[in-house]
Amino acid sequence: MAPFEPADADYETRVRESFARQRIMATLGATLGRVAPGEVEILLPYRPELSQQHGFFHAGVTATIADSAGGYAAYSLYPADASVLTVEFKINLLAPADGERLRALGRVRKPGRTLTVCDIEVFVEKAGREKPCATLLQTMMRLDGRPDRPAG
Amino acid sequence: MAPFEPADADYETRVRESFARQRIMATLGATLGRVAPGEVEILLPYRPELSQQHGFFHAGVTATIADSAGGYAAYSLYPADASVLTVEFKINLLAPADGERLRALGRVRKPGRTLTVCDIEVFVEKAGREKPCATLLQTMMRLDGRPDRPAG
Amino acid sequence: MAPFEPADADYETRVRESFARQRIMATLGATLGRVAPGEVEILLPYRPELSQQHGFFHAGVTATIADSAGGYAAYSLYPADASVLTVEFKINLLAPADGERLRALGRVRKPGRTLTVCDIEVFVEKAGREKPCATLLQTMMRLDGRPDRPAG
Amino acid sequence: MAPFEPADADYETRVRESFARQRIMATLGATLGRVAPGEVEILLPYRPELSQQHGFFHAGVTATIADSAGGYAAYSLYPADASVLTVEFKINLLAPADGERLRALGRVRKPGRTLTVCDIEVFVEKAGREKPCATLLQTMMRLDGRPDRPAG
Repeated sequence: MAPFEPADADYETRVRESFARQRIMATLGATLGRVAPGEVEILLPYRPELSQQHGFFHAGVTATIADSAGGYAAYSLYPADASVLTVEFKINLLAPADGERLRALGRVRKPGRTLTVCDIEVFVEKAGREKPCATLLQTMMRLDGRPDRPAG
Repeated sequence: MAPFEPADADYETRVRESFARQRIMATLGATLGRVAPGEVEILLPYRPELSQQHGFFHAGVTATIADSAGGYAAYSLYPADASVLTVEFKINLLAPADGERLRALGRVRKPGRTLTVCDIEVFVEKAGREKPCATLLQTMMRLDGRPDRPAG
Repeated sequence: MAPFEPADADYETRVRESFARQRIMATLGATLGRVAPGEVEILLPYRPELSQQHGFFHAGVTATIADSAGGYAAYSLYPADASVLTVEFKINLLAPADGERLRALGRVRKPGRTLTVCDIEVFVEKAGREKPCATLLQTMMRLDGRPDRPAG
Repeated sequence: MAPFEPADADYETRVRESFARQRIMATLGATLGRVAPGEVEILLPYRPELSQQHGFFHAGVTATIADSAGGYAAYSLYPADASVLTVEFKINLLAPADGERLRALGRVRKPGRTLTVCDIEVFVEKAGREKPCATLLQTMMRLDGRPDRPAG
């Protein structure tokens, strides 16, 4: 994969500030990991409060951190005055999300002026070993002239 | 759409008990609405703790209740000793989830012995008016001989 | 579903002319059926030359007419100087496409300035009876100022 | 990605014979390239008869060879008496399929007893240079005890 050039040198600050405004992330207990141009990682430790009926991470929780990981991967390449919107994504669950931690790794597959396509991989860690538990293909939209950061 | 015959007369109890074991639903504040054969509704009032960076419901939260609405629509048609697993879903976001409440309506499109395909519509209510905010196409898998309910 | 107002009164001519330029349609033997604002139908009689290894319509053939049915449903609502591009679609195969004819019915689910979301249903007719064999959820993009019709 | 062990040593013959029975492939002019355990390549030279309205490969043609590339990647890992069925796939079009040849590369992402998840990349070659034009995420189903090869 080609390395990406961020349009805004301050991309990491923008990503971290926007993530901090996603209150669902604190509600779930998710934190931002590595932020690089076109690549963003989100981590989520297990709690029973995040579970489906068998005690594993709910697929929607997996989808939530994956959607943000892909969204911020796209956003990291945007100019400073643009914001980001999820158009759609598809998720395949590859294995039960049974473990102590999820890690979502979002990567830009194809950047574009209006639409950016991202791949997201989600891994579940159990007893110190990580394995893939979900894969997503996602389309993000750039909204120019609408900074993500609230005015004021 | 053809009406569906549930394989187990006690389907509603099974759905409601399984939903109650999905601890993420209580964490989000989601409740189960109508449960009919092949059709299940989930409701979720707004709280800032569920939001993305602009204050709307996060797309992953929308996906979470939609995934369960479709999953339980499939599960409502299963025999008593089967459990349900999400294979995959695709979600299109149709409008910002900006409002006081989400309502996800999951419906079986095509039941099958192993795989069931569901449609899920999600509506956002604002100032007493509902509009569609997301649509999903989902594939669920039936696991026979593995009751959802934990042995005890 | 709300009825749609076409932006260009001449939408049907535009759709029929563009379809006639899709040479794959003649290669497969597909014809355009009903064209209404936001709704387009494509028909395809069976020939062994369209088959997968068991003699049924290949899933890609089903996807081909479905993609065009959805694309032209979106295009029917566009202004005269715009063209249409498939961003992505997801297809679920609901039953073997075993029969004498396919019928794809594309419908706009949510029109938008840039992106339009469509539902497409594909039916297979066998011995005079039609049944659903595939369902698609598709995202189309509008390119303004780039008429579909070649200059000259 | 882990290398895969084929369940049937004769996997390549089975894949090549089944591909030869997909009559749509000859109709389009597609040929089978490399066949390895869990990885299958399909090639398709351009002809105007395969085009959409602007003269490029139709997205459905891209989807057709991609679906078979992924399907045969899954099938290459199956036991000899099993056949393969597409459950669903999602395709993102990354660039116009404008060129002299398409190449679809299907790879198993996650093999399973019943369901196998595949990634497919499609490249378009123009003036001797290849670039990605589509990416797919696909779910295939294994039907045991139903050999692909017709009896007799």
